[in-house]
Amino acid sequence: MSIKSMIREIALSAKEASRLLRTIKRKEKDAALESIARKLVERKDEIMIQNKKDLAAAKEKGLSPAMLDRLTLDEKTINSIVQGLNEVMLLTDPVGEVTGMWERPNNLQVGKIRIPLGVIGFIYESRPNVTVDAASLCLKSGNAVILKGGSEAINSNLILADIIKEGLEENNLPGKAVQVIPTTDRQATTELLACDDLVDVIIPRGGEGLIRFVTENSRIPVLKHYKGVCHAYVDKYADIDTAINICINSKVQRPGVCNAMETMLVHKDIAEEFMPEVAKAFRKAKVELRGCEKTRALIPDAVPATEEDWPAEFLDLILAVKIVDSMEEAFLHIEKYGSNHTETIITKDYARARRFLAQVDSSVVLVNASTRFNDGNQLGLGSEIGINTSKLHAFGPMGLTELTTTKFIVYGDGQVRD
Amino acid sequence: MSIKSMIREIALSAKEASRLLRTIKRKEKDAALESIARKLVERKDEIMIQNKKDLAAAKEKGLSPAMLDRLTLDEKTINSIVQGLNEVMLLTDPVGEVTGMWERPNNLQVGKIRIPLGVIGFIYESRPNVTVDAASLCLKSGNAVILKGGSEAINSNLILADIIKEGLEENNLPGKAVQVIPTTDRQATTELLACDDLVDVIIPRGGEGLIRFVTENSRIPVLKHYKGVCHAYVDKYADIDTAINICINSKVQRPGVCNAMETMLVHKDIAEEFMPEVAKAFRKAKVELRGCEKTRALIPDAVPATEEDWPAEFLDLILAVKIVDSMEEAFLHIEKYGSNHTETIITKDYARARRFLAQVDSSVVLVNASTRFNDGNQLGLGSEIGINTSKLHAFGPMGLTELTTTKFIVYGDGQVRD
Repeated sequence: MSIKSMIREIALSAKEASRLLRTIKRKEKDAALESIARKLVERKDEIMIQNKKDLAAAKEKGLSPAMLDRLTLDEKTINSIVQGLNEVMLLTDPVGEVTGMWERPNNLQVGKIRIPLGVIGFIYESRPNVTVDAASLCLKSGNAVILKGGSEAINSNLILADIIKEGLEENNLPGKAVQVIPTTDRQATTELLACDDLVDVIIPRGGEGLIRFVTENSRIPVLKHYKGVCHAYVDKYADIDTAINICINSKVQRPGVCNAMETMLVHKDIAEEFMPEVAKAFRKAKVELRGCEKTRALIPDAVPATEEDWPAEFLDLILAVKIVDSMEEAFLHIEKYGSNHTETIITKDYARARRFLAQVDSSVVLVNASTRFNDGNQLGLGSEIGINTSKLHAFGPMGLTELTTTKFIVYGDGQVRD
Repeated sequence: MSIKSMIREIALSAKEASRLLRTIKRKEKDAALESIARKLVERKDEIMIQNKKDLAAAKEKGLSPAMLDRLTLDEKTINSIVQGLNEVMLLTDPVGEVTGMWERPNNLQVGKIRIPLGVIGFIYESRPNVTVDAASLCLKSGNAVILKGGSEAINSNLILADIIKEGLEENNLPGKAVQVIPTTDRQATTELLACDDLVDVIIPRGGEGLIRFVTENSRIPVLKHYKGVCHAYVDKYADIDTAINICINSKVQRPGVCNAMETMLVHKDIAEEFMPEVAKAFRKAKVELRGCEKTRALIPDAVPATEEDWPAEFLDLILAVKIVDSMEEAFLHIEKYGSNHTETIITKDYARARRFLAQVDSSVVLVNASTRFNDGNQLGLGSEIGINTSKLHAFGPMGLTELTTTKFIVYGDGQVRD
């Protein structure tokens, strides 16, 4: 069978499964999640055997220790996958929620009701734990999902898919509701992106290269972010200790993720007092500062920032620093170099906090809090499947609700249009 | 200047304008709409002079009388455009609505607030009244808009754009908030569809050919419907008179639009009684019936339906008719041939009405009401900019709210992540 017909068949059966998923109840979905959790524990030795194949091939290919670490499924990671399933089980099912209902002058009763999106294509890189996470969120929100993981994780993903299928079928749910594409051929991705008659949305997760490839080749709407170039703006009315705390946390707590701060903007009126102190804290945390000229006048050991540093997503212990003359200059900088992901202001001034919240066009805008809070869990959405920085559908972190849409339902008594 | 640089310049200035629009108040937007309405009346002679140029060229090209009618801007159409502006003025501004707010265990207060999408590209065919309609909805929802109308209406569109610009600037709003692309070259459309760094969403309105062209060439998310193949399902428990009323209205009241019924599905248990009566009514309304074999056994003068009739959008006084053995068969037919646009059931049975509402995957699903109600105005959204049958962002008619998105705002007091 050609890759093209294999992918068409997978997408067709996913669409068929989605039709059945449309009306199943929360109880049945949770029962399947519970079965999957149980089977993951029962079959953990099998999982680890398949995962060792992937690890051996990856070592041969010379993958970095960090990559090998992400690929590993051991007792601990399996337990954390099971815990993730338990958390999804506890989340409210968004499907069926009536988000509004009103009556028209002709007595038609019009409402909007939450329904699954249908079929989701999820394209990601090498962490096999993401396979179960994504499957559980899609299932709980009533969607069928087609998973295309990284080639390094193919054996791990296939055994996980088999376990998920058993868990579904044990509960009389369609086994095709969750499918892993059983090939590492990149053509499979391209073919999936062409199935715009069967797949409702594509969610890619991974590096900027993967996301760009998916966006440029897809005829299906894509929910994604390319990168997170997050800013903290330290206002002239900032509390110095609060500002240091938040800036350090935003940069250092987990520098390799999209919601870590990449550029710090500092108002000129506070720079003289703030910069030496924050520089000391960053030095202690081994963060390299790349500063504008004014920054370097205050912090002589800062590396001179170049034009490439302002739009950069370092994902590392590196921070671009710019001193600005006004909040308006900070806005313009964020507008020009930002990624509409996450920005925070540190200030004690009420009106300036309000202005920042209103003016900054990012998926999450914070006052006096770390950029690291742009995360579905942290914001109270439950687990998240990703963060979207395009304005369509769901701007920001996407939880279960964001995996649904609404349709209109209309109750009539024979009404016709004049 | 090349078309490419012209379009980039338009898109860049639209993005700049959208930054200013982001924080303007309802009062200012309504004042601009009022100025535009006043200027349309003041300058109606100029408008009609420009429109006559378009009409003369269109006549020379041999456009049909129906097309010429759509293109015409006379005293009456200008008045109706002004009335449309007055209606948009009365609508609530969706921007700034807080759609939810909650507190996290760490005391972070997290909310979602409605914001404009940013820059909208609106691509449409020859009605120049749509230029003002679309501009007013985009402006009221705080978006900048780039309008690419049909080439036949270029002179009319340019004078309307000039009037809108004056109305904006008179109220200190950016004139670039509404721009008409001043060329009829199709390359302009392709270049606009490539501006994915500046334009947030594309909304095309017109025939299926235009929509497919836009979707296939766009890197920007597209909200659209290809066609409306709407079904009425007459259940075995239908009230016959209600069913006839609704089916006639759905087909005949305005056959050339996307929410008109194209296929009628009839349960076999009611067919013998219902079919002759409804056929009589359709005959009186000059509707051609194209029936399945079972239909033709009851209505011998019905044309035999072919496989091409089931997915057809006739937009005319033609109706495909199929007798089904069960509601499940109706579901499968709609699933296979429908367009996720509008479906209605006529029944007196409570449980079957509930099943239909739950199972049918269309943007508007009705019980005992005409398909013609799938319309922003009719459903109570106010004016609409179009109907979207993709599941993303807004499934169904799109009013002002659907021209916005939400961002997260977070009020903190120094919180950082553990």
